[in-house]
Amino acid sequence: MTGIRRAALIASALALTLVLPALAQETPSDFARLEATQNAANAKPGPRTVPGRAIPVPPTASAELQAIIAAPYRVPNWNADPKSPAEWKELIGRLAAIGATNQKGVREKLGVTLETSTIAGVTVYTLTPKDIPPANLNRLLFHVHGGGYVYNPGEAGTGEATAMAAYGGFKVISIDYRMPPDFPYPAAMDDVMAVWKEVVKMHDPRSMAIFGSSTGGGMTLAMILRARQEGLPLPAAIAPGTPWSDLTETGDTYKTNEWVDNVLVSWHGYLGRAAALYANGHDLKDPQLSPIYGDFSGFPPTILTSGTRDLFLSLTVLTHRKLRRAGVEASLQVFEGASHAQYYIDPFTPESKEAFGEIASFFDKHLGK
Amino acid sequence: MTGIRRAALIASALALTLVLPALAQETPSDFARLEATQNAANAKPGPRTVPGRAIPVPPTASAELQAIIAAPYRVPNWNADPKSPAEWKELIGRLAAIGATNQKGVREKLGVTLETSTIAGVTVYTLTPKDIPPANLNRLLFHVHGGGYVYNPGEAGTGEATAMAAYGGFKVISIDYRMPPDFPYPAAMDDVMAVWKEVVKMHDPRSMAIFGSSTGGGMTLAMILRARQEGLPLPAAIAPGTPWSDLTETGDTYKTNEWVDNVLVSWHGYLGRAAALYANGHDLKDPQLSPIYGDFSGFPPTILTSGTRDLFLSLTVLTHRKLRRAGVEASLQVFEGASHAQYYIDPFTPESKEAFGEIASFFDKHLGK
Repeated sequence: MTGIRRAALIASALALTLVLPALAQETPSDFARLEATQNAANAKPGPRTVPGRAIPVPPTASAELQAIIAAPYRVPNWNADPKSPAEWKELIGRLAAIGATNQKGVREKLGVTLETSTIAGVTVYTLTPKDIPPANLNRLLFHVHGGGYVYNPGEAGTGEATAMAAYGGFKVISIDYRMPPDFPYPAAMDDVMAVWKEVVKMHDPRSMAIFGSSTGGGMTLAMILRARQEGLPLPAAIAPGTPWSDLTETGDTYKTNEWVDNVLVSWHGYLGRAAALYANGHDLKDPQLSPIYGDFSGFPPTILTSGTRDLFLSLTVLTHRKLRRAGVEASLQVFEGASHAQYYIDPFTPESKEAFGEIASFFDKHLGK
Repeated sequence: MTGIRRAALIASALALTLVLPALAQETPSDFARLEATQNAANAKPGPRTVPGRAIPVPPTASAELQAIIAAPYRVPNWNADPKSPAEWKELIGRLAAIGATNQKGVREKLGVTLETSTIAGVTVYTLTPKDIPPANLNRLLFHVHGGGYVYNPGEAGTGEATAMAAYGGFKVISIDYRMPPDFPYPAAMDDVMAVWKEVVKMHDPRSMAIFGSSTGGGMTLAMILRARQEGLPLPAAIAPGTPWSDLTETGDTYKTNEWVDNVLVSWHGYLGRAAALYANGHDLKDPQLSPIYGDFSGFPPTILTSGTRDLFLSLTVLTHRKLRRAGVEASLQVFEGASHAQYYIDPFTPESKEAFGEIASFFDKHLGK
């Protein structure tokens, strides 16, 4: 970095520190000054110049979600930079232990039980709610957890499955697929496909749906591509939430929501590193890694979920549009103020209940009984 | 403004000028520095601190839309600040003359004809496409134009109606309702309701839909509330695009997309002034001015459209969620990189054709023949 650029960055940091309280309580004449600066900076076609700002917590989200929106950046998750497989495993294990403990509490509060079994050699958790309505007795949901292909092994990955079981009244199986650093692509996809292949022998796939958010959303889409390719039956519906449907740095909200999303924060955090670790040299644009490059025609009815502050809002809407252009019934829900996956990270917000309620009613419409 | 705040703003403007080229070609060590600054600035719960940035034009939009995304801020529209009714009228008239000329060219390109008539004393334009498919012969669409209750009188307001006629193959009537400064609330609503009351005597409302974007979207929602209240028939479907459903400064994307949206740019431009001019002392939260405060139960099936850079993305998703919570069939489409109403401002982008195609197929599903 040159001396000038270093000086500029320091000046910027100082200026931000000084100016933000002023902007927060801006007067008309402050605004006029900013307006003039901004009009001048954006007077020619090209990239958009945007000033540093303090963005308030929106009162339009529920009080519960407001607390989550107000939270600091998710350190160390978002910017993890382990230097070796051992360091990755230490971090992953430490976070997963916390996650597993949290999930135990969540299950107790929501009246959901967890059983562990093995299908096709893969660990599978079955989440069962206290009450299953008659319409759902023969239905089974297949959950693929998120976590950037590195986080959430074991019970830490079952949160979304628990919420879906509780709020939708479904029996859910959640797949503990293998992950890097020990098992890069295609281990994760091989595991979920092996389980799918077994499960559809026992359950009518027309009474099943596949769902999962973030990495789990990308894998859900990749599963449909691969099932179609391998001549396996498809589920009656899918719910890829805020799907990591493209492992390359693609999508406008990677820039517009950079530093705004407090979960993923920036592509230049762990995301890019996790993508490389998972791909392990494979082409990132292979539709099995980045399903948005695949052919979506013939996909089952799909419901997608995101938030206005989500770094993956673009991935979600690009996936939605591509599904629609392929003639697929595809529904989109976007939650006010929510960063990446914040519609389910805390299952106790009204927005989480609403998001899972929408998915449940979409499944109810499309799944056989 | 205190001397310290003035100095801070000047320092900020200087720093932005210096730092943006550096950010645009950032190196890993630049990022590490920014990461540390940002983590520190967001280490405690509260508002989100976001740095100044240059946001590139997203290659994920079509080439045609990219040119529109790259455009400078829409001056003088976004920050107009007329000091008198005469100044308002001069600006409105000047922009409307340009708009009317543009629309003539658009109609010629799209093979749509315009006829002018009067219904219930209100000027109404009828837009007729070259070909009307048999299924649409007895269908009629009712268009309410946008423009912040001040812009787009006369033929300038017919662009969206023309695109819908051309891409959907529908006959469309577009209402030239009265506006401020001469005619504040409730003149605009009185006019569209007077026309609606007459039109439903001649056409079966079950074969009709109401649509319009921005102010036209807000008015579409307010029309349903008022029609229900007055015991008038409702249309079979509505398409409020990026609706100005709340005239107060409400919604997270007013902040997250401030200075990002190149159409509306900021609430503190003309928007707030137009809201005050229209309301003319009425409560901005009256559901006839801000329909989001109304009861949406029993609304017709609704399709909403917005973009990821839209200052009204929050208004759109808040309206969508409220409709869904009221049990209304409501569909949401969001376009990558699009600022406010950019899915229709230029009818020749692939995104515009796609947006109107979606609305047309939604109408086809819900309108009687």
